[in-house]
This record gives sequence, C-alpha cells and structure tokens, in this order.
Amino acid sequence: MPVPGPGYSITVRVDAPPSSTAAGDLTSAVGRVGGVLTAFDVVESHPDAIVVDLSANVLSAEHADDITKALNDLPGVRVRKVSDRTFLIHLGGKLEVAPKIALRNRDDLSRAYTPGVARVCQAIAANPEDARRLTIKRNTVAVVTDGSAVLGLGNIGPAAALPVMEGKAALFKKFAGVDAWPVCLDTQDTEEIIRTVRALAPVYAGINLEDIAAPRCFEIEARLRESLDIPVFHDDQHGTAIVVVGALRNALRVVGKPIERCKIVVSGVGAAGSAIIRLLLRKNPTDIVAVDINGTVHPGRSDLDDNLRWVAEQTNRDNLAGTLHEALVGADVFIGVSAPNLLGAEHVATMAEDPVVFALANPDPEIDPLEAQKHAAVVATGRSDYPNQINNVLAFPGVFRGLLDAHAHDIDDEMLLAAANAIADVVDGDRLNASFIVPSVFDSAVAPAVAEAVKSVALREQATSVGA
Amino acid sequence: MPVPGPGYSITVRVDAPPSSTAAGDLTSAVGRVGGVLTAFDVVESHPDAIVVDLSANVLSAEHADDITKALNDLPGVRVRKVSDRTFLIHLGGKLEVAPKIALRNRDDLSRAYTPGVARVCQAIAANPEDARRLTIKRNTVAVVTDGSAVLGLGNIGPAAALPVMEGKAALFKKFAGVDAWPVCLDTQDTEEIIRTVRALAPVYAGINLEDIAAPRCFEIEARLRESLDIPVFHDDQHGTAIVVVGALRNALRVVGKPIERCKIVVSGVGAAGSAIIRLLLRKNPTDIVAVDINGTVHPGRSDLDDNLRWVAEQTNRDNLAGTLHEALVGADVFIGVSAPNLLGAEHVATMAEDPVVFALANPDPEIDPLEAQKHAAVVATGRSDYPNQINNVLAFPGVFRGLLDAHAHDIDDEMLLAAANAIADVVDGDRLNASFIVPSVFDSAVAPAVAEAVKSVALREQATSVGA
Repeated sequence: MPVPGPGYSITVRVDAPPSSTAAGDLTSAVGRVGGVLTAFDVVESHPDAIVVDLSANVLSAEHADDITKALNDLPGVRVRKVSDRTFLIHLGGKLEVAPKIALRNRDDLSRAYTPGVARVCQAIAANPEDARRLTIKRNTVAVVTDGSAVLGLGNIGPAAALPVMEGKAALFKKFAGVDAWPVCLDTQDTEEIIRTVRALAPVYAGINLEDIAAPRCFEIEARLRESLDIPVFHDDQHGTAIVVVGALRNALRVVGKPIERCKIVVSGVGAAGSAIIRLLLRKNPTDIVAVDINGTVHPGRSDLDDNLRWVAEQTNRDNLAGTLHEALVGADVFIGVSAPNLLGAEHVATMAEDPVVFALANPDPEIDPLEAQKHAAVVATGRSDYPNQINNVLAFPGVFRGLLDAHAHDIDDEMLLAAANAIADVVDGDRLNASFIVPSVFDSAVAPAVAEAVKSVALREQATSVGA
Repeated sequence: MPVPGPGYSITVRVDAPPSSTAAGDLTSAVGRVGGVLTAFDVVESHPDAIVVDLSANVLSAEHADDITKALNDLPGVRVRKVSDRTFLIHLGGKLEVAPKIALRNRDDLSRAYTPGVARVCQAIAANPEDARRLTIKRNTVAVVTDGSAVLGLGNIGPAAALPVMEGKAALFKKFAGVDAWPVCLDTQDTEEIIRTVRALAPVYAGINLEDIAAPRCFEIEARLRESLDIPVFHDDQHGTAIVVVGALRNALRVVGKPIERCKIVVSGVGAAGSAIIRLLLRKNPTDIVAVDINGTVHPGRSDLDDNLRWVAEQTNRDNLAGTLHEALVGADVFIGVSAPNLLGAEHVATMAEDPVVFALANPDPEIDPLEAQKHAAVVATGRSDYPNQINNVLAFPGVFRGLLDAHAHDIDDEMLLAAANAIADVVDGDRLNASFIVPSVFDSAVAPAVAEAVKSVALREQATSVGA
C-alpha cells in the first residue's frame, strides 16, 4: 500500500471531550484508516471541551473523507472543518513583485521615477546593452508555457499551468537568486508562441520553456534560439538531460564501466528522451537504442517525424527492430522517460552485468524500483521517496545563474555537459555509492557549482569568439 | 535660474586636507557654482587627509562637471570618483520576484511544487475562476508598453522604456499592494500588440497600458476591452483624466462655479486630451473646445482621424474655427496636455472671471505657472515644484486595487468618475484652497479611498447585471 506524503496533507479541526483518553482516541482513529499524523495542536481548551487541529498526510480525497468519518464516529467528537494544506498555501498565489528601492519621499520618487528615470531611459536608448546593468533584465528569466504538457496532467491549458510556473519561479529564486516570472500563453499555435516570446523578450535575460508538448517544443526552441539574443532553454529537455547525464556518470563510476563501452536503451523519445539522447551522444557510448510506443527507432520505420528521423540516424547502429524487451537484452543502461510499468525484474535480468536502471516516468516509474533492485546495480527514479531522485531542480537554477552572470547570449551543449559534470562532482568519492549518485535537491552546494561551471564555459566561448 | 532637484543628484568622493577650514571650503565650492548640497559624509579620516562624500543636486551633466572642477581646483583637494545617485539606485533594476511561501524542506516542496501542486492545477482546470483564488492572477497587473511614447522622450523603444515600467510597478506595490509586472513589447504593430497581450493575459487580472502613442493606443485599448475578460486601462488616457476631473471639481469649488456653466478649452487631443474630454462630457459643461496644433477641432476640418472626428462631433457647439488664443477668450477653464510655452499672462487675462488654468505639459508647462497666477484664480501643473501637482500616481494604484478586489471583468466611465470624486473628496472643505486642490501623492488616504469608490461601483454593476 502506498504511503501518504506531504503533497496531500489535511488539517482537521475537531471538538473533543476533555478526557485523559481523548488524544489517544483521536490519533489512533487517524492511524486506523491509514492517515499519517504529522501534528496535534490544541487550539482551545475549556472545562467541557477541547478544540484540536489534527494534521495528517493522506492519499486522496476519498482517504481524507475516511479520516473525517473515523473522527466523527468517535463518541463526543465533532469535526468542525477540514482544510487542505496544499490549497491553503496556494491561496493568493506563491509570488509577489517587490520593489528593491525605497519610495518614502519626494527625493526617492524623483530618482526612481520621474523626472530622474528619464536619464536612465536615455542612457539605455543610447546604449541598449545598458539594459542589463540598469534594469531587471540583468537577473530576470521568463518561465514560458502554453499549458500543453503540464507535469503528468497533459494539456490542461495556461491558467491551470500557472501554479506549476509559480512554483518553478519560487525555486529559481530560492536556489539561485534568479527572478523568474510566469508567462502562461493563451495559445498553442507554434507560430503564435514564437511571435509572442519574441515580442516580450526585451525584459528578460533568458527564456525557460516549460511543459510545452513535443514535437512543437523542438521547433519553438530552435526558432527562438535563432532569433533571440538571449539563451533559450527548454527545461523538460535540457534540464532533464543534464541531471540524467550527471547521474549516469556517477552510476557508471559505481559499477566501474566507462560510458564508451556501454550500450544504452532510452525508452521514450519525447522532449526529455530526445534531449537525453542528444547529450549522451556527446559522450560516445558504444550505442544508444531509442524505443517508443512503436518499438525501437530505426530508419526503416515509416512513421518517423523530423525528430525521430534524426534519432534514427544517430543511434541504433545495428538497425535493431523490435520491442523494448528485445532491445534491453545485453544493455548496460536503461533510461526510461516514458510510461509506467513497462518492465519487470525478469527484463532487468536480461541486461548486461551490473546494469543501471533509471526509471523516471512520473508519478509511476517504468519499473517498480524494488523490483528493479533485484538485478540492477544502481536504480534511480523521479520520485522523492526512493534514493537517487533525478530532479530538474538540481539543474535549472544553477544553469540560469551561470548564464545570467556571464551575460550569455546563447546556450550550447558544452554548457549542458559542464552542468552535468558539476552536479556529478558535488557527490565526492567518499560519499558516492549505489544509493547516492546525485546530491539532494536541498544541497546548497549544487546551484553554485552548476552556475560556476556554466559561467566558465560561457565566458571562455565569449573570449574565443571575440578573439576569432 | 532653475533650481536643481533630486532627480539629478551626484555624490563626489574627494580627498581633502584635514584642516579646520576644509569642510567650509568644500561646501562653499559646491554652492558657488549653483549645486545644492544635500549631504556631507566623512568616510575616512587620517592624520594627513580626510575622505569625504559630498552629495549634491545638480541641473545637468555639464553642471556636474562644473562642480567637479570647482572641487578639484581647491588647494590640496582631489576628486576620486563622481557617482550619479539616480543611476546607482537603478543598478540591477528596481524589482524582484519574491516567493511568498517557504521552501525549507521536502514537505514545503511537496506542497508548493510537485506532487502536491498537481491537485491545485486540476482544480483550476475544472473551474477556471479558481485561478483568481489559487494563483498570483488575483493580485497581478501587466504594465504593457511598446516604448513608443515614453514620458516626454518619445519613441525610445521597449528596452529603454523598462526603467519607467519598473518604477510604475514599484508605485503599484507601494501605494496599493498590487503586484505589477513590466511587459515591454518588441513591436509597435497594432495587431501584434493586441495579439501578444491577449496571449499573455491568463496570468493577469488587469492590463495597464502605458506610454503607447496615439492614435494606435485607442484601437489597442478598445479591441483588448472587447476580447479580454479582465479590465484594460490606458493610464496616459484614463489615469490623467481621473486626476484632472477630480482636481477640476475642487478648483471649481474654490472659484464657486458649477461645471454646467463652464466653458472649457482643452489644448492637446492625444491620449490624455481625448480621455479628459470624454470624461468631462459626462459632467455636462456648457461647452468644450478642443485645440490641437492645427487650431480648434471642428467638423469642417479636412485632417480629422477617427478620434478627432469624434471629438469634433461631441464638442465645440458653435463650430468655432481659429487659434488657441482665440478659443481662450471668455473661457472659464484651460486644460493643457500639449506643449511648452503656448500661452502668456496676456492670454489668461482674456479668459472669464476667476479662470482655472491647468498647464500640464511635462516637463515644461503650456504657461509658466508664475505668469498664469497673475490672472488665474487656480493654477495646476504636472510639476512637483509647484502647488497642485496633477500626478497619475493619485489614480492608478487605487483604481486597480478596487478592480482587483471586486474581481472586475471590465472598467467603465462610472468607475473613472467615482475615482475622480474620491480623489477630490480626500481634500476636505477645511483644507481646500487655491493652492491645495489635490492631495499630496504621499497622502496614504488616497489609494484606499479611490479603491473603495471603484470597487463599490464595480460590485454594484455586477449585482445589477446578475439581477438583469
């Protein structure tokens, strides 16, 4: 049975009798129906009654109802109110726009606004690069979505995507001091998205594309990179690819295999899978075999779009046709960014010795990690309740911090690889083992290390290009 | 000679001898060339020298050079560095995006981001109005410009306009707790602007158009109002009109004339002038005569665009043709939103008894207010260094606060008039006089009064429309 987590936690306010057994009755009622009690707070105490807030992690709305009922059924207990703590922290949104300057008096106003601001405007009009010095552009990134592929929820549209983009912006600030702003577009037309992002670019020093469905995400990214003079990064592609490549480096250190002698199977060739393949190719593995819902990707298939055709040309040197299970035989590494429950332990058993399994489908992985562990030497998932969580939070804050600090005008694979290595290197040799191939998302050393690595590549390339 | 203001203030760091006369020598050198000293800070003191920061208001870059030279010419004094304080406070921009939630640990992350956030997204997908409850939309306004008519600087483009939009956003937060975000568009095409604003609307509960040139500002506003379900407000039009109409109400109370018996001349028929005329018409003055660079606006002119034709039809009931000076003869009120130095005291002398003169061109008004005062009963300008400053800051923060609090889907003239009255009413009868017809921009009673007035009209209209 799955264990309730803090992503769904409720607080139930109850009236209870002031008896010595009340606390025990309440907590055991919650536990009896599978709730995980996280807090017990007496908010009022009277001679004839106490008022208690019981906080608990639950599995679902039905589960919350079960708990409420179990409490209500206790003699003398009455449930007053059930609050959902996840919704509570979302009330009014998760971001605010805060002035960094004082506006206490006329002097402040004269400098920050009219008439003083006019001279700052004129300076930028005369020298546009000054916008990076004298405006928020210096530190500001747009988090752009069309709401077409949000989390595992699919095409829920721009308004419903906003809570995710707000959360992302909060993470940008928390982990790397980047000011990120949600841009949720009321269009899913490729041309319209490109036009809109171009039009709003002057305020930003970077564009983070987010949760835009494949294949249009590829064209949008490519065309924006061509036409904008600020870096464009699609997190679902490159953020994931960075963390996977960094984690794989450490996994292969654990099993003692150089990537040049590894055969890698990638399941799922959407945004994430394609980007992972592109970045892995830079590391020269023995071979990569990509697999999608129609089996292995090879040039003989008649259903290939531009993206899949490119993948077919660059991978699968033996032109292997067939199923995922067939491709897996003898492979050193499995990387899944596809769908739940595609594999059992018996399939992992067919892989090469000491196989590495990254089962990253969310929320349910390609294989239950406990099953995978039976034969795999290293297992990673996207989940926070198993070791080795592959989480983009390890990448995107530091990547943009580095790009902004370098005043970068673009981003390339060298920077992505530097970021991947930086993440891997945070796990030093002493700590590295099969259950610890990536640092914690709360490790405050990660973002600065990633930022420094990205910045240093960006500055080196700028120096080279000026010299050329 | 004009007096230097805080909009241009410098700090000069100097090495000086540690003599008893040094301070006096330094301060008198600044004063001698017309600088206004605002601070004298000793930052280091050694037996053989002191280091002093002298802060002063100056008139221009040349004036700053004069002061630097005057200091350098003092015996034993050496200027180390001259900093421009207006530029200093702009370094890195004036806004930041701050999370309102903690992200200290895994539980926080699980609620604010994945997996918990998914339930919030699903709630909004099921009921889109929930976006106003569970996201930043509730309190967020876009400050949209194309950089085509910025302050008095003209068409300086989107990047150079950004410092103004940042300042505006800071004022929104300071005066009304509204989260406003700068949207500086890299296009000046009407259709493209409309399309872009529509596309980015899901994040916002209101659109504040800013510094967009006439006449395209009229079409952009009208088309956006039609197609969006959030209020659209062009501050250069309606913000100005609100403050002018409010100030005029108090000015006419001072001179004891009902507006229904006033003839009003409006000089300038761009964004501000047109909106002022539209709002004034709701108050039934005897007549309005609009004047632009080609003279009075009347239906017989061959150069009228849609906007001017509308003005010609609604005003100037005697079909007066001629110059501004001719139109002014016998008028009760002059409102200028046009160009500097169009009038002298002799023209004000031709107006009706106790004339009201609002000379609002910025930075130099249509008539020097000291000249106007010779014959006018009440004079107002856009400047902060004369009484009766007509400043949009009195209107826009409260207007949007009221709209957001009412969850308003649109804005209409009733709300604008309510805002105008609210501003006028902040100046109670005891304080009202010819030099105090509008409250100070720092009067903290203004924004709440305006918000309450706007909200109350919005809620009344919502109730009526539900009832209908």
